[in-house]
Amino acid sequence: MNPITLKLQAEPLVRMALQEDITSEDVSTASVMPRPARGEVHLIAKQDGVICGLDVFLLAFQLLDPTAVFHANVAEGDKVTFGQELGIVEADVRALLSAERVALNYLQRMSGIATYTRNMATLFAGTKTRLVDTRKTTPNMRVFEKEAVRVGGASNHRYNLSDGVMLKDNHIDAAGGIAQAVAAAKAHAPFVRKVEVEVENLQMVQEALDAGADIIMLDNMSHDQMKEAIELIAGRAEVEVSGNVTAKNAAALVDLGVDIVSSGALTHSAPILDLSLKHLRVLS
Amino acid sequence: MNPITLKLQAEPLVRMALQEDITSEDVSTASVMPRPARGEVHLIAKQDGVICGLDVFLLAFQLLDPTAVFHANVAEGDKVTFGQELGIVEADVRALLSAERVALNYLQRMSGIATYTRNMATLFAGTKTRLVDTRKTTPNMRVFEKEAVRVGGASNHRYNLSDGVMLKDNHIDAAGGIAQAVAAAKAHAPFVRKVEVEVENLQMVQEALDAGADIIMLDNMSHDQMKEAIELIAGRAEVEVSGNVTAKNAAALVDLGVDIVSSGALTHSAPILDLSLKHLRVLS
Amino acid sequence: MNPITLKLQAEPLVRMALQEDITSEDVSTASVMPRPARGEVHLIAKQDGVICGLDVFLLAFQLLDPTAVFHANVAEGDKVTFGQELGIVEADVRALLSAERVALNYLQRMSGIATYTRNMATLFAGTKTRLVDTRKTTPNMRVFEKEAVRVGGASNHRYNLSDGVMLKDNHIDAAGGIAQAVAAAKAHAPFVRKVEVEVENLQMVQEALDAGADIIMLDNMSHDQMKEAIELIAGRAEVEVSGNVTAKNAAALVDLGVDIVSSGALTHSAPILDLSLKHLRVLS
Amino acid sequence: MNPITLKLQAEPLVRMALQEDITSEDVSTASVMPRPARGEVHLIAKQDGVICGLDVFLLAFQLLDPTAVFHANVAEGDKVTFGQELGIVEADVRALLSAERVALNYLQRMSGIATYTRNMATLFAGTKTRLVDTRKTTPNMRVFEKEAVRVGGASNHRYNLSDGVMLKDNHIDAAGGIAQAVAAAKAHAPFVRKVEVEVENLQMVQEALDAGADIIMLDNMSHDQMKEAIELIAGRAEVEVSGNVTAKNAAALVDLGVDIVSSGALTHSAPILDLSLKHLRVLS
Amino acid sequence: MNPITLKLQAEPLVRMALQEDITSEDVSTASVMPRPARGEVHLIAKQDGVICGLDVFLLAFQLLDPTAVFHANVAEGDKVTFGQELGIVEADVRALLSAERVALNYLQRMSGIATYTRNMATLFAGTKTRLVDTRKTTPNMRVFEKEAVRVGGASNHRYNLSDGVMLKDNHIDAAGGIAQAVAAAKAHAPFVRKVEVEVENLQMVQEALDAGADIIMLDNMSHDQMKEAIELIAGRAEVEVSGNVTAKNAAALVDLGVDIVSSGALTHSAPILDLSLKHLRVLS
Amino acid sequence: MNPITLKLQAEPLVRMALQEDITSEDVSTASVMPRPARGEVHLIAKQDGVICGLDVFLLAFQLLDPTAVFHANVAEGDKVTFGQELGIVEADVRALLSAERVALNYLQRMSGIATYTRNMATLFAGTKTRLVDTRKTTPNMRVFEKEAVRVGGASNHRYNLSDGVMLKDNHIDAAGGIAQAVAAAKAHAPFVRKVEVEVENLQMVQEALDAGADIIMLDNMSHDQMKEAIELIAGRAEVEVSGNVTAKNAAALVDLGVDIVSSGALTHSAPILDLSLKHLRVLS
Repeated sequence: MNPITLKLQAEPLVRMALQEDITSEDVSTASVMPRPARGEVHLIAKQDGVICGLDVFLLAFQLLDPTAVFHANVAEGDKVTFGQELGIVEADVRALLSAERVALNYLQRMSGIATYTRNMATLFAGTKTRLVDTRKTTPNMRVFEKEAVRVGGASNHRYNLSDGVMLKDNHIDAAGGIAQAVAAAKAHAPFVRKVEVEVENLQMVQEALDAGADIIMLDNMSHDQMKEAIELIAGRAEVEVSGNVTAKNAAALVDLGVDIVSSGALTHSAPILDLSLKHLRVLS
Repeated sequence: MNPITLKLQAEPLVRMALQEDITSEDVSTASVMPRPARGEVHLIAKQDGVICGLDVFLLAFQLLDPTAVFHANVAEGDKVTFGQELGIVEADVRALLSAERVALNYLQRMSGIATYTRNMATLFAGTKTRLVDTRKTTPNMRVFEKEAVRVGGASNHRYNLSDGVMLKDNHIDAAGGIAQAVAAAKAHAPFVRKVEVEVENLQMVQEALDAGADIIMLDNMSHDQMKEAIELIAGRAEVEVSGNVTAKNAAALVDLGVDIVSSGALTHSAPILDLSLKHLRVLS
Repeated sequence: MNPITLKLQAEPLVRMALQEDITSEDVSTASVMPRPARGEVHLIAKQDGVICGLDVFLLAFQLLDPTAVFHANVAEGDKVTFGQELGIVEADVRALLSAERVALNYLQRMSGIATYTRNMATLFAGTKTRLVDTRKTTPNMRVFEKEAVRVGGASNHRYNLSDGVMLKDNHIDAAGGIAQAVAAAKAHAPFVRKVEVEVENLQMVQEALDAGADIIMLDNMSHDQMKEAIELIAGRAEVEVSGNVTAKNAAALVDLGVDIVSSGALTHSAPILDLSLKHLRVLS
Repeated sequence: MNPITLKLQAEPLVRMALQEDITSEDVSTASVMPRPARGEVHLIAKQDGVICGLDVFLLAFQLLDPTAVFHANVAEGDKVTFGQELGIVEADVRALLSAERVALNYLQRMSGIATYTRNMATLFAGTKTRLVDTRKTTPNMRVFEKEAVRVGGASNHRYNLSDGVMLKDNHIDAAGGIAQAVAAAKAHAPFVRKVEVEVENLQMVQEALDAGADIIMLDNMSHDQMKEAIELIAGRAEVEVSGNVTAKNAAALVDLGVDIVSSGALTHSAPILDLSLKHLRVLS
Repeated sequence: MNPITLKLQAEPLVRMALQEDITSEDVSTASVMPRPARGEVHLIAKQDGVICGLDVFLLAFQLLDPTAVFHANVAEGDKVTFGQELGIVEADVRALLSAERVALNYLQRMSGIATYTRNMATLFAGTKTRLVDTRKTTPNMRVFEKEAVRVGGASNHRYNLSDGVMLKDNHIDAAGGIAQAVAAAKAHAPFVRKVEVEVENLQMVQEALDAGADIIMLDNMSHDQMKEAIELIAGRAEVEVSGNVTAKNAAALVDLGVDIVSSGALTHSAPILDLSLKHLRVLS
Repeated sequence: MNPITLKLQAEPLVRMALQEDITSEDVSTASVMPRPARGEVHLIAKQDGVICGLDVFLLAFQLLDPTAVFHANVAEGDKVTFGQELGIVEADVRALLSAERVALNYLQRMSGIATYTRNMATLFAGTKTRLVDTRKTTPNMRVFEKEAVRVGGASNHRYNLSDGVMLKDNHIDAAGGIAQAVAAAKAHAPFVRKVEVEVENLQMVQEALDAGADIIMLDNMSHDQMKEAIELIAGRAEVEVSGNVTAKNAAALVDLGVDIVSSGALTHSAPILDLSLKHLRVLS
């Protein structure tokens, strides 16, 4: 992760997660290790996948012991395999024990998303189509999950409601039509924003084109409808395809040759990658 | 969710999630709806499952418009089916549009966990065995995910490192053995805590018994080993079984008749339940 | 201000400003008014200008007394004149006295910016050129100052570093050239972002065009240079003009016919609009 | 700035300002500089004035890169001239790029206030009259703006409503008269506070004297009225003069020989001092 | 407590105290009362004393249930006696149970301080000497403890290091002498501050007078020394007496006729007043 | 204190306490010491007692000057005597002066509790009875006060409402009886919790036993009643005795031979231990 984002956005959230897990003290650790002692523990992959979030993982230990270091055998985004030793964390034993779960909770989720994304992104490799994520992220986890999507090999859609304009069915209903919605957005939104419209049929595609949409998103349309829509658009707007895109059905979208395929599943339904900290050793 | 927990613990997190999604303004909504207007939108199930988190869902709208209400057709924990209309949210149209994603991100995840848990909990219904969760929750989501486990029909293990004593392999290594670890915990921890020890073989079971452990957790043992362990314990401690328990393999644990089966999968690998807000209507 | 932005982004800052002004208690008010009493006070313009920030002004009182109301004689964005009574605030007398300065500090600054902006925006009225602000805002005041720019009749540039791409001299130096910088941005940034490049001479204009910049900003160029640049660009990118644009020199830019003129002075050098609360009356 | 105030009060605000400017990541910088690299950039004065806020300026960089240093050619409070190189900031290039605007936003505003104050303070140099500021500061900027006033050569009035007693027209109205207001303040306020009363005519001066006010503030009175008031007070209370004191009209107050002249313009209407960071160079 | 102070300063601390006591949920209450139900509970005095903090007490309940009310039989500052029923709190039963301890923890401490203060303040009733507190308060409890001192019948010294100047032995050592310390303070501190000097012998008294101290504090001097000091000062400065003033030895100070007697014991050593919530009744 | 608890839980509270004492700047210190200078100051005991909180004391200085160190002559939990020099704090003089009061406020309170606890704990030394604290702690001080109880030689009861189940009179009233309350808690609470019931007479003891309570607390019963209760319980539950246990009456409880004696007085009524910082010396 960008080190500035890690410091400004991620660090307060990781500290909160540690406070969620330790509200008074870590009773078990305080019992067994009442004195300072340097120690090390091994990070082991218990599944094949893509590793992601190593800097967040280390940060969890450093917030409890600023001298914590990670001797890594792998780099961010590497493929890892069952049983592989990924590195050694070295810190005060109490920090190793007390931050273990939070550190792994971040690493497992980010790696799970990166693994799931890598699989799907491979389908689009070498094509003009970019795979991107959505805003269907876990609350207060967006900065981590969007990073994992990038490490997995896909790109990011807008970050949130403030930095992109997307006019969906409910906005169009509220505005009274596509033309009105696009006109309102062009008048109100900062000029550096592209205006995207979500459409469900060919008539809406035409309306979006007429209104001057920069991006048209084809939502939950059939393969044939999408082909027709793309012909109709004919390069006058960027084209995004969306709607229940998962690892299972994404391959069918490759031949469409659209600019963008977006998938909420990347962040809302990827299972974790199983990882473990083992073989704690007290060094001093 | 308990209304006090909703107010004290959940509300600050939901507010943060809204701020994560809106850092300056919701540009799309501010464009299409520059004036106050009451509206309503329908909550639709797009998958079969168990609904969970309706109060958190409503809270997201209320934090933007305190007059928001939810006219519910279902209750917390109800089974819902594809296409079912679960209720109507009524609020200022701008709150409906701006809180939609955050409200759904909570509801979908909580319902996904409740659905996954319900499936697994059914296996143990009518037995003496309680299914429980772990601390393998998403960072800053624990209060929501543990609630979803309960609504799904399972129970909670300890909440965090401060409110339960669990001596795992790394603690035992740090202490120099099970006897030392348990003795340290009994001396240091508040007397209201039960002391739990994680063991991997029969010798460790015996050591845990000798040390006076209140709960013994059999971690990743074979079915036969677990049977032997249970005979050895013979009611002198509560017995918990753990280790990659998922919806697929949980059935095999029923006949063991242990007190507790714990599963990290409940919170770390349940996919979301697909839900949608549709048919926004401006009322005024 | 959008009511959702007022609640999510502005309210925490207004509360902080009140706490900046009252760290233990308002000693003067606590001395003279030890009991609850409803009161009213008149908002008077002491200068001609454009009023802006009335909802923020009211919010300061409401945070101390939720029943506070403002009986307004003017609407957001109205012209006001010396001596005009703009409305009456009614609340507990203690809230009237204790929030007065913070409420006015916001209102005076926002109105000062709106007034200064209105003067400059008038120059571009009826042309294709939009006047916009910059990121040269007062720290922790951006949400208020960008709103004041809109109320004043201009538009907003990007909100911050996260929601727009602008490659300035220092970025180009870091990347090793315009081509490299634009390529890097197109690869890394979310596809919903337009890519803007700041240039200082015609050669850089050509490089930015070749690199595929969406927007080209002519920075501190002479009038003749700008004319040449605009001819060179010939509609292949949006054109922004910047560099010490103030109320005094903006008129000279009108004939250029560019898309955008940006001015830091709107937010960094507008004097306040003088306003006052007078004639406090205890009602009960 | 006092280093303890910088750490306790200023640092949280500077961090917030950075988060205001970077809500997810600095997209431009993350694009052009994906790796760590030491760099330097030059701070250049683009206007004549007084430099102020160098420690706050550096802090903005250090919050993103703790190893950032500033090699200064000038000291806090020095006069600077157009084109002068004030120093070099050295840090990770990404911190240089990402903190640039926030660092300058503080430095330009503080220097603008120091410059404006220096001009006005010079008028009172060598006299018994102290020039002081007011509470008409920008919300959440008081600690910076009051510092800039001191660096500019003036002094501070009370910091906020909690650490000084000032009975203004609205307090006197609420109390029912000057005598009642002063008596209430003497009874309620901590004895270490001086009690100040704002008056508008000679009768009020007399009442304030009779009530035992420690300081009498002559608000918006004519030059002749002020002279009469000062004679009437005859040293029995400190005398403050206030009311639209700006750089233009302050000279006329020198001959009055009062103890204190206060000016809101110092903080509410000083334009910024134009400063720039130029010539970024990647060192490694 | 002043309602504005209650809202701005006290409320965030009371909310934190509730979160200190409830980190996930109130397990006992959630078990026995899973549904909404209105209830009431009686506040009973278990000791004689002075009641103080009733609004803080109620606030704790209201933060969990905004509809909570307190039907009071007593007013702030009233004497209460063993066994007396002070009032009835009515709210959702869960709020009654979950806020009970925090509400009482505040009320008992504030009432304890008010009781202890009342006893000591009575000694000085009718004399010119004011009894005041110090900064020896419990961390993060100052706003509550200083209020309790006032309700108990004494006055407040300065609130904190920012709103009063007190030059103690260590400051004088740092400055190099009393003359230097006072001169520095008169030059640097806002003119609305009185300058107080702590002295330990007659020579220091003389130095403080010569330096122009506004207040002279006689610290830990013998009764005879204090008499001499007071004669020496002869009204040229206010006189404060301090140093281990407790309920036991305060009477001996009355005849000195000084302006101020300050006592740290008021806030650092008062035992609590025993109070209890009894007879919970479910109303619905 | 456990260093992880010090960092995660204590540090934010100590920073808040410093901000409570310094809201703008430390005016006195800023006056007398406008430049950096290393200094030292001596920590002196002014009473006999047990020292506790040395790491919190040091932390207060380090938060203002990270290079602050404490050269200790004593260790946490040592007995100290009147006049003893406990160590020397070395730091920037401004940090020494500005953090002095907050550092001492923590140290004096924690040492006061440790001293009071040591006296009472000695009564139970060598017996099977553990002395423990309660939740009658000062708001936002629990993490410090519970630590002081341990350093004083006693143990901790549950930390808060979330990590222990205690069914008191009001819970039993709400549930409709002991049987119902215990059954509800066994069904709802995490299985790692022991269930404790507070009883007032023998009949309630019997009901608690029948309901399967893990711990029975005898509240405010006479000595004879307690003896009978203990016989009745006969080892089937742990026994706790509570109710106005103070240093004066605790001895009478020793012969009962119960498991636990709890005392609220440990944290709510211990006077502080008088300590002082003296002999500041500027080193550079």
